[in-house]
Amino acid sequence: MATTGKQLFTTLEADGTLTVALEDVTLPDPTGAQVLVRMEAAPINPSDLAILVGGADVENAEYSAGKFVAKLPAPVNAASKARHGLKLPAGNEGAGTVIAAGDSSAAQALVGQRVSCVPGSAYSEYCLADANLCLPLGDHTAEEGASAFINPMTALGFVETAKADGAKAILHTVGASNLGQMLTRICLEDGIELVNIVRKAEHVDLLKGQGAKHVVNASDSDFFEQLTDAIRETGAFCGFDPIGGGTLVDTAFKAMERVAYEQMTEYSRYGSNQMKRMYIYGRLDNSPTTLTRSYGFGWSLSGWLMFPFLQAIGRDTVMRMRQRVRDNLTTTFASHYKTRVTLEQMLTRDAVLDYRAMKTGEKYLVTPWG
Amino acid sequence: MATTGKQLFTTLEADGTLTVALEDVTLPDPTGAQVLVRMEAAPINPSDLAILVGGADVENAEYSAGKFVAKLPAPVNAASKARHGLKLPAGNEGAGTVIAAGDSSAAQALVGQRVSCVPGSAYSEYCLADANLCLPLGDHTAEEGASAFINPMTALGFVETAKADGAKAILHTVGASNLGQMLTRICLEDGIELVNIVRKAEHVDLLKGQGAKHVVNASDSDFFEQLTDAIRETGAFCGFDPIGGGTLVDTAFKAMERVAYEQMTEYSRYGSNQMKRMYIYGRLDNSPTTLTRSYGFGWSLSGWLMFPFLQAIGRDTVMRMRQRVRDNLTTTFASHYKTRVTLEQMLTRDAVLDYRAMKTGEKYLVTPWG
Repeated sequence: MATTGKQLFTTLEADGTLTVALEDVTLPDPTGAQVLVRMEAAPINPSDLAILVGGADVENAEYSAGKFVAKLPAPVNAASKARHGLKLPAGNEGAGTVIAAGDSSAAQALVGQRVSCVPGSAYSEYCLADANLCLPLGDHTAEEGASAFINPMTALGFVETAKADGAKAILHTVGASNLGQMLTRICLEDGIELVNIVRKAEHVDLLKGQGAKHVVNASDSDFFEQLTDAIRETGAFCGFDPIGGGTLVDTAFKAMERVAYEQMTEYSRYGSNQMKRMYIYGRLDNSPTTLTRSYGFGWSLSGWLMFPFLQAIGRDTVMRMRQRVRDNLTTTFASHYKTRVTLEQMLTRDAVLDYRAMKTGEKYLVTPWG
Repeated sequence: MATTGKQLFTTLEADGTLTVALEDVTLPDPTGAQVLVRMEAAPINPSDLAILVGGADVENAEYSAGKFVAKLPAPVNAASKARHGLKLPAGNEGAGTVIAAGDSSAAQALVGQRVSCVPGSAYSEYCLADANLCLPLGDHTAEEGASAFINPMTALGFVETAKADGAKAILHTVGASNLGQMLTRICLEDGIELVNIVRKAEHVDLLKGQGAKHVVNASDSDFFEQLTDAIRETGAFCGFDPIGGGTLVDTAFKAMERVAYEQMTEYSRYGSNQMKRMYIYGRLDNSPTTLTRSYGFGWSLSGWLMFPFLQAIGRDTVMRMRQRVRDNLTTTFASHYKTRVTLEQMLTRDAVLDYRAMKTGEKYLVTPWG
């Protein structure tokens, strides 16, 4: 009873030619803990974009039905060497209905149910997913469950990471993003102080309207003072940043150190001993991270990625996090979408140029069946 | 019975004028756990230099007997704002004879003994030191005991830090330094694999002559391949770097990632999950640290400073480390000096220009009494 349907693949050749195209794929029957899901909705997250469009010249790509072919600039292509010649699926997460299952009890229990899943090939009509990562959605729609994994588990992961560091407050550098708004709701519920950085006055209003107490605007001329004040008021010496490139992480460390230094009673050539931690969890800016190290030696900058984090933190904590997501899917963990597109529509020039821009609050949802 | 002697002070005015000069100072009698030490030898470590000369224009300074006055370039001076108007002692460590003690038993036990000490004001004829940080030197000379704290506890601290990270091998970016040679001896004794980076062919020979197995020369055109090979052979995913500025840390992460990536069985857009850690423990290069982040998300870069590390690791471990230093002072933990200078001589132009250059293997020893 093999199942055939359309699936998106992204292929990078050694010469820098990126082909993103739909193909008809016949999936084998699910085995073990696998479930076969008829996909109904899948978001385009920033973490999906790297593999979908990366640094490709999508403005000048060739677009045709169910396909585009673009060139990667030479430096980007050189940095992507590990991908050369590989045809990869795309779409971390989504939601759909389980139409077949392997013989494990976890898989069998899901047959006929609508689930949130994390197949890594969510941009498809059908896909195979791990039953252990599926969340049964009950009466929720596929749209409500499409983003139930990446953003919720990332935001909850920040809180767990901060707690493990002994932090009582968190800095987040993209407060107005879907993830940022979710983190704002979580921190309000949990009584954790949060400093949100945004880039537009309207986003200050947006977050304050949602109850956020500390929102600082990086576009304001007194941004550094705003940030320092907010860190002083909250004690946010632990921050998360998906931008990565440039000087924002450095600025955050400087503001943290200024607050720590104010509280010292005597001069130290080594700066404060207050531990300052920043985590980079994305690549919105691929340019190098610049660190002036003008904040003593009590600092740490790390990469942060959800899946290794979940592996490290252990199954019990993960299950507790998953349950919380399920219980609050349309409130705390709700995501919002600008547009719905079919698999074909997501490969058109207008769509690609728009979602590639990753504008705050303008997330796309792929609905394979329209 | 107050004691009077010469002591070096370094003062930075708001206008960028740095005055380093000897003064006659009358010390109060030691109290509690304090001991009064007649200083006989004190090294000029890189960690002392920042406060002694920093980024001052010592070439064009005014030198007179027991004094020099130099200008800090405007950017350096602006970054040193916290020091403006402060008159600071200098000299982290040294050795001398305890001539008086406070009434604590630890202090009283040291009277009449030659000790290694960590007064923070070691460039002086007499100073007050904490008895708890003193190491009785027995029959050792002051020169043998002068550097018994900073380098030995730093090198042992690297090993403890690497162990706490679960690392079995260590990368050190300045293998030929006094500290690097000490770390080489420690790792040989403890059976820990060590990758030493040096910058001169003669330093490759020097370290190999001391038994080092993995020495790579950053001046060679195939440095990156040498480094990658050494990391592959040792599994050194944990490194220590006192340079800080530039791209060396980034290069180390890249080499670690290349090795980790070779061992992966399938492509991941996120890079390897192998945790790669680098610690910056100095400021030999004040320029910004540049991170390309082209090594996935499994990386962490932290500042590392000995005193907070010792505070965090606990008294028992510190005492065990101290005992090891004492037992191996003239072997594992021996330091070597290029020149001895008096307090007056260390403030002459020739001396300042020479030790400021921080050439590998050319450490100065200050001997206040000649």
